[in-house]
Amino acid sequence: MDESIFSDPAFPADQPSPGQSRYGWLAASLRARITQGEWVPGTALPAEAALAKEHGVALGTLRQALALLVAQGLLVRQHGRGTFVREGLGGASMLRFFRFATEDGAPGTPQSHILGRQLRLASADEADGLGLPAGASVLQLQRLRSLQGQPCLLEHIVLPLPLFEALAQSDLAAWDDLLYPMYQRVCGATIHRAEDSLGFGLLTAEQASLLRLDAGHPCAQVDRRAFDLAGRCVELRTTLGDAFAFRYTAHVR
Amino acid sequence: MDESIFSDPAFPADQPSPGQSRYGWLAASLRARITQGEWVPGTALPAEAALAKEHGVALGTLRQALALLVAQGLLVRQHGRGTFVREGLGGASMLRFFRFATEDGAPGTPQSHILGRQLRLASADEADGLGLPAGASVLQLQRLRSLQGQPCLLEHIVLPLPLFEALAQSDLAAWDDLLYPMYQRVCGATIHRAEDSLGFGLLTAEQASLLRLDAGHPCAQVDRRAFDLAGRCVELRTTLGDAFAFRYTAHVR
Repeated sequence: MDESIFSDPAFPADQPSPGQSRYGWLAASLRARITQGEWVPGTALPAEAALAKEHGVALGTLRQALALLVAQGLLVRQHGRGTFVREGLGGASMLRFFRFATEDGAPGTPQSHILGRQLRLASADEADGLGLPAGASVLQLQRLRSLQGQPCLLEHIVLPLPLFEALAQSDLAAWDDLLYPMYQRVCGATIHRAEDSLGFGLLTAEQASLLRLDAGHPCAQVDRRAFDLAGRCVELRTTLGDAFAFRYTAHVR
Repeated sequence: MDESIFSDPAFPADQPSPGQSRYGWLAASLRARITQGEWVPGTALPAEAALAKEHGVALGTLRQALALLVAQGLLVRQHGRGTFVREGLGGASMLRFFRFATEDGAPGTPQSHILGRQLRLASADEADGLGLPAGASVLQLQRLRSLQGQPCLLEHIVLPLPLFEALAQSDLAAWDDLLYPMYQRVCGATIHRAEDSLGFGLLTAEQASLLRLDAGHPCAQVDRRAFDLAGRCVELRTTLGDAFAFRYTAHVR
């Protein structure tokens, strides 16, 4: 029998290990039920009393475990309504880094146009970033996003297989403007959080042409690593946009 | 008798107002003792039992109030040592936005050179930002920061008077490389947190010359508002640096 399964967080032990608190063990069990899809993002957890009984713990222990998962961002409490699995990143989260001038002030959701889609081998860095074995295959997308018909963001996206297999074949015309809700619906992959590394560069002639800017125009570059509910990196994305439209607020303590 | 003093958070009432929790009222009282300088940043609070007795509350109520102030970032707990007033921003916090190439890899603290210092009237925006009456005076600083002799950041700083009066006269040769510890030591002003708005622009000929770059070179611009323990904005700062040295990581949920 393979012992390693017991150290996999997807298969928590049926009782606390030595030194582990009871509520910490319970939180790991609840986390596993969420990441395995028993409760999908947006759904409510069962009533606290029922859940405590099911796991054979006191109500206080259950509440401590839930508080831990709230603090970790996996659950949200809605006052008077219950405890819910937090929705993934759903909106146009790249727009938090840019302020594009639009006629009516409210940019809304950019229109998405997939310029390219190909299956290829992952580079060493990509395999490393996505936790894939060397020589694994990935799906690469290039897409252009526009606001009111004006191109504003150029993106290069790398997705691991077989998780995103369904996107390799599906009709591009039926794709949504937002990818993350589609990742969830079509591939069962919830983007839970992202790490964005911001920098500045200059556009190549080809990039500039797609964004209707001059070659060598300054651009802001966002290198994103996006993670699913289980903490796995499931998307690498590079986004380029006009540097003069870049604006971001950071809070420093 | 002036009633308004009772709504000033610096003078909390001597008992909870209707609808206010006892620990919320106690937290406001403790906050006032900190912002009024009774316990300066870095010092330990008295033992919990003594503090509860002094305020005439139960130990549990005191602990709830302390937990609230920890959550608000005013206090920090050090395991086994006690509860401390959090230190202000002390290090070279602007360097979190830039990665300057240095010979040994570790940038250290930039050397500071004050290029200009003048007393003048605040603009309307500055008075608004600093909570000053129209026509109030401010102290303006221009400084250049260098790493290993290489200029890297050009800063324009506006400080309210009379809080920073002492800096208007003091010998510039005796100034520290870091301003925030000096603000605290010389003026009693602790910078507790900051809001940094990041953007992009091009250097003027004069700015570029000071930074030893070409006129029109791309720059990252950080517009900072820095706040003291009481939540007042006490510094407006604009920092310019080479856009190609800009690098910042944001976490998105």
